[in-house]
Amino acid sequence: MHAKLEELKQRLLEANDLQSANALLSWDQTTYMPSGGAEARARQMSTLSRLAHECFTDPAIGKLLDELRSYENSLPYNSDDASLIRVTRREYERLVNLPSAFVAEFTNHSATIYQAWTEARPANDFNRVRPLLEKTLDLSRRIADYFPGYTHIADPLIDFADYGMKAESVRQVFAQLREQLVPLVKAITSQNAADDSCLQQDFPENQQLEFGLAVIKDYGYDFQRGRQDLTHHPFMTKFSLGDVRITTRVKRNDLGDALFSTLHESGHAMYELGINRAYEGTPLANGTSAGVHESQSRLWENIVGRSRGFWEHYYPRLQALFPTQLKHISLDTFYRAINKVQKSLIRVDADEVTYNLHVLLRFDLELQLLEGKLEVRDLPEAWHERYETDLGMTAPDDRDGVLQDVHWYSGWIGGVFQGYTLGNILSGLYYGAALQAHPSIPAEIAQGKFDTLHGWLRQNIYQHGAKYTAAELTERVTGGPLRIEPYVSYLKTKYGELYALA
Amino acid sequence: MHAKLEELKQRLLEANDLQSANALLSWDQTTYMPSGGAEARARQMSTLSRLAHECFTDPAIGKLLDELRSYENSLPYNSDDASLIRVTRREYERLVNLPSAFVAEFTNHSATIYQAWTEARPANDFNRVRPLLEKTLDLSRRIADYFPGYTHIADPLIDFADYGMKAESVRQVFAQLREQLVPLVKAITSQNAADDSCLQQDFPENQQLEFGLAVIKDYGYDFQRGRQDLTHHPFMTKFSLGDVRITTRVKRNDLGDALFSTLHESGHAMYELGINRAYEGTPLANGTSAGVHESQSRLWENIVGRSRGFWEHYYPRLQALFPTQLKHISLDTFYRAINKVQKSLIRVDADEVTYNLHVLLRFDLELQLLEGKLEVRDLPEAWHERYETDLGMTAPDDRDGVLQDVHWYSGWIGGVFQGYTLGNILSGLYYGAALQAHPSIPAEIAQGKFDTLHGWLRQNIYQHGAKYTAAELTERVTGGPLRIEPYVSYLKTKYGELYALA
Repeated sequence: MHAKLEELKQRLLEANDLQSANALLSWDQTTYMPSGGAEARARQMSTLSRLAHECFTDPAIGKLLDELRSYENSLPYNSDDASLIRVTRREYERLVNLPSAFVAEFTNHSATIYQAWTEARPANDFNRVRPLLEKTLDLSRRIADYFPGYTHIADPLIDFADYGMKAESVRQVFAQLREQLVPLVKAITSQNAADDSCLQQDFPENQQLEFGLAVIKDYGYDFQRGRQDLTHHPFMTKFSLGDVRITTRVKRNDLGDALFSTLHESGHAMYELGINRAYEGTPLANGTSAGVHESQSRLWENIVGRSRGFWEHYYPRLQALFPTQLKHISLDTFYRAINKVQKSLIRVDADEVTYNLHVLLRFDLELQLLEGKLEVRDLPEAWHERYETDLGMTAPDDRDGVLQDVHWYSGWIGGVFQGYTLGNILSGLYYGAALQAHPSIPAEIAQGKFDTLHGWLRQNIYQHGAKYTAAELTERVTGGPLRIEPYVSYLKTKYGELYALA
Repeated sequence: MHAKLEELKQRLLEANDLQSANALLSWDQTTYMPSGGAEARARQMSTLSRLAHECFTDPAIGKLLDELRSYENSLPYNSDDASLIRVTRREYERLVNLPSAFVAEFTNHSATIYQAWTEARPANDFNRVRPLLEKTLDLSRRIADYFPGYTHIADPLIDFADYGMKAESVRQVFAQLREQLVPLVKAITSQNAADDSCLQQDFPENQQLEFGLAVIKDYGYDFQRGRQDLTHHPFMTKFSLGDVRITTRVKRNDLGDALFSTLHESGHAMYELGINRAYEGTPLANGTSAGVHESQSRLWENIVGRSRGFWEHYYPRLQALFPTQLKHISLDTFYRAINKVQKSLIRVDADEVTYNLHVLLRFDLELQLLEGKLEVRDLPEAWHERYETDLGMTAPDDRDGVLQDVHWYSGWIGGVFQGYTLGNILSGLYYGAALQAHPSIPAEIAQGKFDTLHGWLRQNIYQHGAKYTAAELTERVTGGPLRIEPYVSYLKTKYGELYALA
């Protein structure tokens, strides 16, 4: 191998080790850490972020990237070496714009506001986090300003998560989607809502967790290289390609909460676990964008995990696990319950059809905050107003209003939410491509078999890691650019049957 | 505050953050990490060890320590600032002798051999770790050789754990102790052994763990600043003075295993949690030596937790928790069972009287290995021979022979075991001093009250952290040097009563 490339990889590995250690500090903070550890933990994460950033943006890496340019140009674009150099350069040029001291300040602040949020949300006390959130907004603007020349202040922030997308391009896609969703939601919610009371019985937590784990084992999540723990707000995290973990939360009186969060996070995890192990410790060993990542969590959670075929296989097992609760509930009733469409307040609990409305309003609020058209102190009210307008209801408090999502309380504002809806759109697009290649997939799902689907995803998406941009990957997989039609068609077909729409 | 001292503290904090992150990597490795994470984890720990070492041995720290010498000399020896400078200098001068690359190699090797040991021990396969252990011995010798001028090759290694002690001084103390122990063990084991079958019934794991946690809560272990998790080989670890955790293991058919391990580790943890919080992130925020640390674990495990008074209070609770198993077992029978003296094979399961014989033979084997008088390949046999000589029995395999302790499979050889027996000796010495100050302590223990004892320990030992050396601390607390008499007298009194010795 090229000696300079070997040197580059060694340096990348060191930065990666620091990042991985930091990921563990964060995982522990949100799973097992006693509260007394919070203050030092914030400092430790700040220190490691700074050191990882210093390590990754070391001028020696810039020099190696320059020296490797002719080697890169001598290789096919898609070769592993050329891709490693290209993607590393992109990340390097991005991160070198952020001073390490700023990264440390930001990380320290993130840990502080996260801890405050874990207390403010149960206390329904937005004011406890308001000054911290104002600082988050200020820091978010400062991030954007490290990338001068943008069209919209959110562009650099969106670019971190969904490389290649801009505020304007996201707005256009979202406008198209809204045009399809609003009448669909209206047509469904003008009918009687499905009865989902069967999900709100008493389901002992351990059995709920066991069931979810059994399903994702069938999916192909590798427990030799992962595990699930409990937390406030479920997430996936990676410490290496040999250790990709998920977290969930469980509610005794809500059968859907833990289960679908487990299926969701397993999709994220299987993506990371499917990456070519030769990429370990390099920037290629990541998902390619927030949207593509989310396409996989939503695919396994919804397209697979809320399909009728899936439950033809699993419902008898679930009934056997919870006989008193479910023996008199038919598969049809259960299937309608887990796909109940209703205007609601909580994004993560929202059904597939209304879910994107939750995202679209958050995206708009982020832009307004960044543009200075909305003040943080007015955010709770703006939140309520927007829910009233878009979903026809207002949260009784901030706990289920502006405090509901962890994102603004653990990262920056801007570019945070669009990935969820881009992911939904991509899930429909990619699943359509998988079906085209393997029409047998739905029948296999109905037998609890996922090898063909998982194998196709590994082959076409997972193994590549961050080698291709989201746009390149979509082009390779579907032969064209991002488009909403397959996703909209999936929604209309599924919910058309469920609600007998015209 | 002195500006240079502030700068020193900032640098120490960064090294400490890296060490703390590394401690978390290690804790996770031994508690929750899936096996697939092992390879990358070894590398990550190696990287962080190297960076922490580089950070702590940065020439800038040496320069600051030089510049602070006159400030240090202007202060009382025992002042916090002078102590911080003095102890940091001692650590700096020690660690600067070890090249960072060596530290990384050693840490990487430690993680590898640890992982191999977790497989080799259940498989009873010493050969699987033998080449790795040979490398450990080689690396251990190399450590010693970074400190030329020693009298015995083990001296530098002992000095890491028990500053101020040498192979020869330890040998002398151990010889005195052996002279007292051998006849005591002989006198006891010539009688009928106590019946401890009451401990080997079926005790559901969760209830065992709950009971142990309830006791250490009474001890004063602060669960806002700690927690207990399960592992192979129990240990205490610290991520900050606000987060000091313990681990245990639990056996369904052995009531003593988890309980006494929990009491033991809680003693280590309370020591760390009692350290002056102003020392956070500095070398003062540690126990002062392995021996002093162990004195606290053994004090809470044995002198308190295996005393008759303690069980006068707790035994009725334990009976209430396990009524079918214990209702017909008298307090006397139970008390004799948990203090059963017998020649045995496993150090951590050994009673107080024979325990030190297990340590003494390991200490001697370490010295022989380092001296080159014993080869690693002959170690299993040497182990068996020494057990036959000293304890009159031979393990049926290596699992309960040379593979039983984690130490040689996760660190170096030499200076590892003497702390256990020094700790026992010191536990008797310190407890004696506490009783002198507060004769009411035994009566309070018999009521499940530990505030006086815990308060005295915090005041006289814990709060000081590493400010004093073990010798200085012992002088302050007891008015004299290390001596074995109080410990021997404690053993003779307790076991004299239990076994009606002359």
